[in-house]
Amino acid sequence: MILVHTPNPKEVAAYLELFRAAMPERQFVDLEHAELSAIRHLVTWGLPDGLLAEMPSLEALFALGAGVDKLLARPDLPADLPVYRLLDGGMAAQMTEYIRYGVLGYQRNMDLYRRQQATGQWRMLAPRLPSDIRVGVLGLGEIGAAVARSLAADGYQVSGWSRSPKDIRAIRCLHGESGLTQLLVDSQVLACVLPSTPDTRGLLNRQRLETLPQGAMLINAGRGDLLDQDALLALLDNGHLRCAQLDVFTEEPLPADHPLWRHPAVAITPHVAAITLRQPSVEQIVRRLRQLAAGQAVDGLVERAQGY
Amino acid sequence: MILVHTPNPKEVAAYLELFRAAMPERQFVDLEHAELSAIRHLVTWGLPDGLLAEMPSLEALFALGAGVDKLLARPDLPADLPVYRLLDGGMAAQMTEYIRYGVLGYQRNMDLYRRQQATGQWRMLAPRLPSDIRVGVLGLGEIGAAVARSLAADGYQVSGWSRSPKDIRAIRCLHGESGLTQLLVDSQVLACVLPSTPDTRGLLNRQRLETLPQGAMLINAGRGDLLDQDALLALLDNGHLRCAQLDVFTEEPLPADHPLWRHPAVAITPHVAAITLRQPSVEQIVRRLRQLAAGQAVDGLVERAQGY
Repeated sequence: MILVHTPNPKEVAAYLELFRAAMPERQFVDLEHAELSAIRHLVTWGLPDGLLAEMPSLEALFALGAGVDKLLARPDLPADLPVYRLLDGGMAAQMTEYIRYGVLGYQRNMDLYRRQQATGQWRMLAPRLPSDIRVGVLGLGEIGAAVARSLAADGYQVSGWSRSPKDIRAIRCLHGESGLTQLLVDSQVLACVLPSTPDTRGLLNRQRLETLPQGAMLINAGRGDLLDQDALLALLDNGHLRCAQLDVFTEEPLPADHPLWRHPAVAITPHVAAITLRQPSVEQIVRRLRQLAAGQAVDGLVERAQGY
Repeated sequence: MILVHTPNPKEVAAYLELFRAAMPERQFVDLEHAELSAIRHLVTWGLPDGLLAEMPSLEALFALGAGVDKLLARPDLPADLPVYRLLDGGMAAQMTEYIRYGVLGYQRNMDLYRRQQATGQWRMLAPRLPSDIRVGVLGLGEIGAAVARSLAADGYQVSGWSRSPKDIRAIRCLHGESGLTQLLVDSQVLACVLPSTPDTRGLLNRQRLETLPQGAMLINAGRGDLLDQDALLALLDNGHLRCAQLDVFTEEPLPADHPLWRHPAVAITPHVAAITLRQPSVEQIVRRLRQLAAGQAVDGLVERAQGY
């Protein structure tokens, strides 16, 4: 018996329909119809606290997302339960669009024209080609690598940074603490798609943001707790940074009275940069359920110590 | 003797340096050093009124731009003087970026998120893929065709419209009045890169804008006199149109008190969508000067009756 649960009943119904069509031989149920002691596989996002303890037969958990930081922090998550996260599932293409929008706007000065518009100012700014812009991508997993490749194909100068060394064509790949400094020093746009892990939390602190060149842009589409929001605001206000495009925040929803909402150099989106798309997610999980049943290797297994 | 003139002396100096390096065997001069009666070729943008009448030896005029509507309207332009306009000159790539920015923002609801941000509203909107968005491109010359091809490569459903029939792979090519209606009826984004000609002036009037589907976006990067700005404002205010990205206006600079500046659904740029880039423009004109000297065919000759 496979339990499918998210906090939205309509979404659960849509998922159940897709799962049952793709795998009619297995029994998919919602929480209301589940016999918890018989649940062997769980497909979920936002499961109520404590519920995992009532599923003693659970053999595997499939997260309906790529970032599993909140899930791994649950006290009721058994230490030896295999957790699988979505690899891509349509998210790389969406993330690429989101970051392309920010980089393109920066290159073409759309943020500055928007500010000129606010005061009715007609003034042409010096044009810049993609090859004039250096972009640094933080995170080179399947999503970050796709973002970096796409930006390089658009003609930007792209560097990327990851925990472990990588080798991607047309991307300057850096790693480790010294690699991070190298990347920050000359990234006019810093695009962050890192997961939240013990290693990455607080990574974008004031000192690292100050390492960016004067007039740089920050795009954060990774996780809110990577970034010191107060430091960002201070550096936007003192002119060291030019603008920011933020999709994730320390507290979500971003509180209505937070100064980020009203800052003229900040564009805010409500955690929508890369949404889990149902059909590719279902296909990915169904493939894994089949591989598990056949005793085959399965991808997407989360390394608990790394956090992804 | 070849005269190079624009209203900006620094720009003239930069052009002269490039022309002299590319074609050291010919004599390039600025207005101050020109013997007007000896000028056989003129490279210009924004020549003072009346000056053309003082150049009886003039054999050809090379416009430093792709749109020549203002030039053709000059009373001092001899009726039989060959006028050449820039074909591309780096403009197609810039125009593609400008329109991609608008289309991508519409697809990803960035305009709506910006409006939600103004009131501190955290609300996720339904995600849309590029293949969910139908874009209509008005104008399929070298620039419009490049824009349409690039949007199709990004995954959008692209239709294009031009005066004469065209055939471009992966683009639904329409022409004529009935073709225009067909295109308008289902374009969620209408991107205009048409030149200003007797046929196109006033094309985007209220009735045609109303033919667009509810919630459509208008991008105008062609010429300001194609569009009825008052009709656009009315249709944005009554909710028929969702937003607009405008680079060109009936009067430029757009007057500081014009309501377009302050409309929350309008993004304004000061005629910068596709700027003449010096190096590719110089290369193109030098090539034509060589072809003329050798009695060869030369591209870019303006058809006065068509206006481009």
